[in-house]
Amino acid sequence: MKEKIVIIGGVAGGASAAARLRRLSEECEIKIFERGDYISYANCGLPYHIGGAIPDRRALLLQTPQRMKERYNVDVKVHHEVTQILPQEKKVKIRDLTSGQEFFESYDKLVIATGSSPIVPPIPGIDLPGIFQVWTVPDTDRIKEYLAEHPIKRAAVIGGGFIGLEMAENLHALGLDVSIVEMADQVMAPLDYEMAKLLHSNIQKNNVSLLLGDGVKEFQKTQEGLRIVLASGAALETDMVILAIGVRPNSKIAADAGIALNARGGIIVDAGMRTGIQDIFAVGDVVEVEDFVDGERTMIPLAGPANKQGRLAADNLLGAREEYAGTQGTSIAKVFDLCAAATGHNEKQLQKQGKIKGKDYDTVMIVQNSHATYYPGAKQMFLKLIYEMDTGRLLGGQAVGSDGVDKRIDALSIAMRFGGGVDDLTRLEIAYAPPFASAKDAVNMLGFVAQNARRGLVKFVPWNITETKEENMVLLDVRTPGEYAEFRIPGAVNIPLDELRSRLGELEREKHYVVICAVGVRAYLAARILSNNAFPQVSIYPGGMTYYRAIQ
Amino acid sequence: MKEKIVIIGGVAGGASAAARLRRLSEECEIKIFERGDYISYANCGLPYHIGGAIPDRRALLLQTPQRMKERYNVDVKVHHEVTQILPQEKKVKIRDLTSGQEFFESYDKLVIATGSSPIVPPIPGIDLPGIFQVWTVPDTDRIKEYLAEHPIKRAAVIGGGFIGLEMAENLHALGLDVSIVEMADQVMAPLDYEMAKLLHSNIQKNNVSLLLGDGVKEFQKTQEGLRIVLASGAALETDMVILAIGVRPNSKIAADAGIALNARGGIIVDAGMRTGIQDIFAVGDVVEVEDFVDGERTMIPLAGPANKQGRLAADNLLGAREEYAGTQGTSIAKVFDLCAAATGHNEKQLQKQGKIKGKDYDTVMIVQNSHATYYPGAKQMFLKLIYEMDTGRLLGGQAVGSDGVDKRIDALSIAMRFGGGVDDLTRLEIAYAPPFASAKDAVNMLGFVAQNARRGLVKFVPWNITETKEENMVLLDVRTPGEYAEFRIPGAVNIPLDELRSRLGELEREKHYVVICAVGVRAYLAARILSNNAFPQVSIYPGGMTYYRAIQ
Ligand SMILES: Cc1cc2nc3c(=O)[nH]c(=O)nc-3n(C[C@H](O)[C@H](O)[C@H](O)COP(=O)(O)OP(=O)(O)OC[C@H]3O[C@@H](n4cnc5c(N)ncnc54)[C@H](O)[C@@H]3O)c2cc1C
Ligand SMILES: Cc1cc2nc3c(=O)[nH]c(=O)nc-3n(C[C@H](O)[C@H](O)[C@H](O)COP(=O)(O)OP(=O)(O)OC[C@H]3O[C@@H](n4cnc5c(N)ncnc54)[C@H](O)[C@@H]3O)c2cc1C
Ligand SMILES: CC(C)(COP(=O)(O)OP(=O)(O)OC[C@H]1O[C@@H](n2cnc3c(N)ncnc32)[C@H](O)[C@@H]1OP(=O)(O)O)[C@@H](O)C(=O)NCCC(=O)NCCS
Ligand SMILES: CC(C)(COP(=O)(O)OP(=O)(O)OC[C@H]1O[C@@H](n2cnc3c(N)ncnc32)[C@H](O)[C@@H]1OP(=O)(O)O)[C@@H](O)C(=O)NCCC(=O)NCCS
Repeated sequence: MKEKIVIIGGVAGGASAAARLRRLSEECEIKIFERGDYISYANCGLPYHIGGAIPDRRALLLQTPQRMKERYNVDVKVHHEVTQILPQEKKVKIRDLTSGQEFFESYDKLVIATGSSPIVPPIPGIDLPGIFQVWTVPDTDRIKEYLAEHPIKRAAVIGGGFIGLEMAENLHALGLDVSIVEMADQVMAPLDYEMAKLLHSNIQKNNVSLLLGDGVKEFQKTQEGLRIVLASGAALETDMVILAIGVRPNSKIAADAGIALNARGGIIVDAGMRTGIQDIFAVGDVVEVEDFVDGERTMIPLAGPANKQGRLAADNLLGAREEYAGTQGTSIAKVFDLCAAATGHNEKQLQKQGKIKGKDYDTVMIVQNSHATYYPGAKQMFLKLIYEMDTGRLLGGQAVGSDGVDKRIDALSIAMRFGGGVDDLTRLEIAYAPPFASAKDAVNMLGFVAQNARRGLVKFVPWNITETKEENMVLLDVRTPGEYAEFRIPGAVNIPLDELRSRLGELEREKHYVVICAVGVRAYLAARILSNNAFPQVSIYPGGMTYYRAIQ
Repeated sequence: MKEKIVIIGGVAGGASAAARLRRLSEECEIKIFERGDYISYANCGLPYHIGGAIPDRRALLLQTPQRMKERYNVDVKVHHEVTQILPQEKKVKIRDLTSGQEFFESYDKLVIATGSSPIVPPIPGIDLPGIFQVWTVPDTDRIKEYLAEHPIKRAAVIGGGFIGLEMAENLHALGLDVSIVEMADQVMAPLDYEMAKLLHSNIQKNNVSLLLGDGVKEFQKTQEGLRIVLASGAALETDMVILAIGVRPNSKIAADAGIALNARGGIIVDAGMRTGIQDIFAVGDVVEVEDFVDGERTMIPLAGPANKQGRLAADNLLGAREEYAGTQGTSIAKVFDLCAAATGHNEKQLQKQGKIKGKDYDTVMIVQNSHATYYPGAKQMFLKLIYEMDTGRLLGGQAVGSDGVDKRIDALSIAMRFGGGVDDLTRLEIAYAPPFASAKDAVNMLGFVAQNARRGLVKFVPWNITETKEENMVLLDVRTPGEYAEFRIPGAVNIPLDELRSRLGELEREKHYVVICAVGVRAYLAARILSNNAFPQVSIYPGGMTYYRAIQ
């Protein structure tokens, strides 16, 4: 008897599961029900199609129902929504969205790959024309149509997550005057505030206006377009709105069937992607996963995990005993001239868990080059590392820069995947030739610096010390007089590094010297000279003037 | 009493050790003796200075003796060669190469960081003008001078290692007609032959002539320039020669002092970079290191290891007990349009050790894209993975392509560093957004494919099966008729993948079907259909027509 496998949802997780299933077996019958118009499409490419970087719409459609039939002998029904799961009878109830008819389909094994949907909050005016979300191909078509039909000048993006930022970039690329509204005090939640600040200033340098710490109270139709009334009372005039404020799992049919969900509506699965009910598997955005860093349960809606879980579930559907090993949440986004990436936990998360910096965990932030500086084209990037205080185990990494950021975050992500620590980073062999890396590459440097911090050789002040200034603190700028003259932090005292040894007499042992240079290396050298000369309170300003200036 | 540390050699290992020493202590006295004209220079940048990519010569000089004094309080003497080490007396004998005078310098601790020197074989005519090596800044100056003074048209590079290839590229960039002569049957020894073949054809497409499997017998002066007489009897007319056939460690003074060397002249050190003699450390190209992959002793002359060893030795010189954890030999080079990179062991090495493919180790080779294909600019790359048969442990990786190769080799290098295996690769989280990677990224795919191979789901034939053809073999091309019509391997039979299920009747169970498509994915799907339909002998041609055509 042929085993019959029914898959609900035909995009990342669902289509991957189907393809893998067929490769494993010619025997089973595979059916996909997809309520949307398309299967196997490149969700992640949608913003770039809107902006024109991906001009050909067909490039987004990786598989069609017809090709899925020809190639994989998988039956796909689009416009078919599964409205009910009947685990007792091993059936699903389906509504043909074209005809409106309902029918049942039996299954031996079921895969729920229903993904998530964008949150559409019940804000007054939310249904006004000109307000869009970006989730599916038809969403994209609608936006492109609207842009084609209305010669608009302004757009507002609600939400500063990666989809919001990608949309802001792409609408800006079309020549629109773009505003971003974000409720939190920063964009890109995976980053900590001081890293996100680098994006803030870059977004603004690109003439995109950024409204942080403010939410939408109401959308209003005006003579010329739309007005967004904000919680603060301010108002923003625009012609079009993109809503990208987050997602929630499409788990209602699962819940109705008695499948256990977590508090956020994520389907609870075991490591084999099995739900609580026999023969029902779930994968992708709709499931709760193990947080790789701390073993807690979490939701991480990303394409890589969805695809991998789809493959793994397929193996297990046919009897294998593969285990999904948790998600770190490694992610990346191109944001105007910059690229921002992160892996693992950030400080905000750790602090929410009650962890204390300097006790439970510590961080370093450095500025490094994408490759050897003497080879043309090297670009500076900012790297942040978070590690466990006791053990040095890596907890998370963040990177912002215009080049080479992806590979450094991947390096951290992989080191973390193996439970690596600070010392491991010092040993990684990053392939080095001048066009590609440095002999002691950026990730090695993160390791060296963190190793030094752990050994007490170096101490960093918080990035905002220049604002919060302690009483006893002296900001010691060790750059050359020329650099100092050109631009300096108010109140900073200048002793060039190369004169420091001979001018130690000018310093007072009671003071806390916060040393600053261009990126941090000279500051570190100066700090070592001071510490080795028994100055008791010496720290360095992380990222130096490069960071300080980048966030102005 | 101030401890006095003497360092012999002031470039990668030596300068790094000095800098780190000073950061650890203001107390010790640090002296560097360097026989050359410069310290702390970017050896690795020299070819690019010659070619003009690094126009400013000063960019190559990372530190000068004067700045080393000012910044690190390190005394540097250039043009000073250490001619003898007297361990009994804890002294070194030094010749001032300017004055010719000799003197002694005492030490408490000594660091040998003398590096390696290019091999200059005793070939007749080797001393003719116009024959150069590329190792130091003065070497580079000489080459640039020669090029400026002689309006030459042709250059020959002897040696197809990374320095030879970088030189070929840079001389070609200057408009010269370049030939490469290499004794082995391939360039870039870290790659296996089939991967190097990708470079061969690309080098030739760049109009650089490549003479493989031939060595130099003699250099002759001719009316117009130089003649290179080859071992094969052939001759090559040129105007200039770059010798880059390998290096040997500068270990004579160590040997003379009774420090134990290995058979290849490398100084034997323990994991703390200590030589066999008390208080004498050695780092960099001159030392033997542990091969990270198998724990054997080996020589790996690369900048990353030299720099890291210099830092680590400095720690240990001052009493720490750090251990160097071995070298994998991760390396990379830009070679015309391509970039070639490798980590760990290659098949040639494994076979030299008596290891057998299919018994001790196995390999997979796949074609992948640098990022999501639907986002513009994705470039194909060839990735090879070598893993232990029993355990799946990674033994080595190789990559050739025009973009994204560095980050994939780094991923493999890091996974290897943690003792990772095939299954681990499937779990790596490579930061994914369309401009950077794929949802199931190239390194995940390597893992999937190798996992399938280990589970018997897929089998590959050797790349050269098209030349060696077995009797019973049928080359089954599953591309579309259009693709097949455009270009095919002679003798290949065409059944498009999407018709295969319905045309199984045309196939014979006794045959060995070697399935081929454009890159390997359709071939794999076809192979699965055949295997799942109980065809007993099914394999796929690795890298498909993309590989086949790239090596033509
Ligand atoms: C604009 C955009 C950009 C993105 N960029 C990135 C990125 O750069 N990197 C990254 O990692 N991730 C990105 N993502 C997220 C990524 O696309 C998702 O994590 C991934 O697609 C989730 O896969 P899934 O299979 O769980 O769900 P989906 O791919 O969303 O597929 C679920 C499907 O199930 C269907 N469905 C739901 N309920 C039913 C039902 N009852 N009956 C039938 N069908 C149903 C839905 O219509 C949907 O097509 C992006 C997403 C969007 C929208
Ligand atoms: C052209 C070129 C390109 C390269 N490209 C790369 C690359 O892309 N990636 C990579 O990883 N590696 C590359 N390398 C190799 C890398 O430069 C070396 O591995 C590294 O410099 C070794 O460091 P070291 O300190 O051991 O030796 P070196 O950096 O060579 O320094 C040794 C120094 O010791 C001096 N010395 C020797 N004997 C004595 C003595 N008796 N007394 C006083 N001084 C002495 C020498 O003059 C020399 O300056 C390249 C090398 C060259 C030449
Ligand atoms: C299109 C889609 C159905 C393809 O899924 P897929 O067939 O699993 O993926 P691929 O086409 O990349 O093929 C990968 C398979 O080929 C194998 N493979 C890849 N290269 C190979 C080679 N050179 N030789 C042999 N096998 C190879 C892999 O091992 C893998 O097979 P496995 O899973 O059985 O191990 C699915 O990816 C999809 O729907 N994507 C769009 C939706 C989406 O992901 N959206 C979010 C991101 S924008
Ligand atoms: C120039 C040279 C002397 C510099 O050596 P170095 O001082 O060890 O290296 P850097 O200048 O990159 O500084 C690195 C130090 O700064 C620290 N550092 C880097 N960024 C930092 C930051 N933002 N904050 C604090 N410390 C930082 C690192 O931890 C490291 O210190 P440590 O070794 O004490 O841990 C040496 O690299 C050299 O001679 N290079 C040329 C030769 C060569 O390498 N050739 C082969 C390759 S072409």
